[in-house]
Amino acid sequence: MWHYETTVVWKTEKEGRLHAGGNPEICVATPPDFGGPHGNWSPEQLLISAVAGCLMTSALYYLERAGVNLRCYIGNAIGTMDKTPEGLAFTRVRVEISITVADDSHVEKARKAAARAEKSCPISKALQCLVEVHAVVRPFREE
Amino acid sequence: MWHYETTVVWKTEKEGRLHAGGNPEICVATPPDFGGPHGNWSPEQLLISAVAGCLMTSALYYLERAGVNLRCYIGNAIGTMDKTPEGLAFTRVRVEISITVADDSHVEKARKAAARAEKSCPISKALQCLVEVHAVVRPFREE
Repeated sequence: MWHYETTVVWKTEKEGRLHAGGNPEICVATPPDFGGPHGNWSPEQLLISAVAGCLMTSALYYLERAGVNLRCYIGNAIGTMDKTPEGLAFTRVRVEISITVADDSHVEKARKAAARAEKSCPISKALQCLVEVHAVVRPFREE
Repeated sequence: MWHYETTVVWKTEKEGRLHAGGNPEICVATPPDFGGPHGNWSPEQLLISAVAGCLMTSALYYLERAGVNLRCYIGNAIGTMDKTPEGLAFTRVRVEISITVADDSHVEKARKAAARAEKSCPISKALQCLVEVHAVVRPFREE
């Protein structure tokens, strides 16, 4: 069993600060769409960051285990929130992953690692809504 | 319909950087329990930060609407992850909220605002697991 802890302290108007152990603090605020200031992380962005981050850390685990020589990993996540009969709710999270590996010999292993990461990611599984993951693996090419 | 976007870029070993618009970047990494470095935000911490942050921003909305004179708001969240038949999964998130208001006349309004926030928070509702919220409201006392 693992425990993860964080504390949020209100600072002013629609803003607070998030603390967890020795981590750099994060300014969190109501999203600008709902009257909050620009330039802060909203809880909604943190949620999809957790999904994108967990898919990455899970993929890194399987990529390393498979001996993949990784050159680049980028994950772009978009979360959609909508009005539902139960109020505002997330209806979908879509994550586009782009993985670049050293050469062709690593492509298939990287594809399998990405698929395993998608299946095992505890954050995706924690969500009620659909989490769609689309991963593309390419070999590195000198430009 | 609202969309929230974030991008994670792998940097080194088990670490990446999260970007979203003009927000300060967040270093995200595998938790130390799973071999990651200390001092970075893990996806698991970001998930519970999203819950704690959303309960705060939702409460701020209802507190403002109710005309509550707020002095202090602290939300402490603990998420529990466990091995389940479906692999690692979050089984529970518990949030302890401490709200201090200007005087006794604001206590009841603040309690109602906190209860409304708990009910409407879209991040809590996005999770499969139980989200327990325990809010305590106190009037401000000069020490």
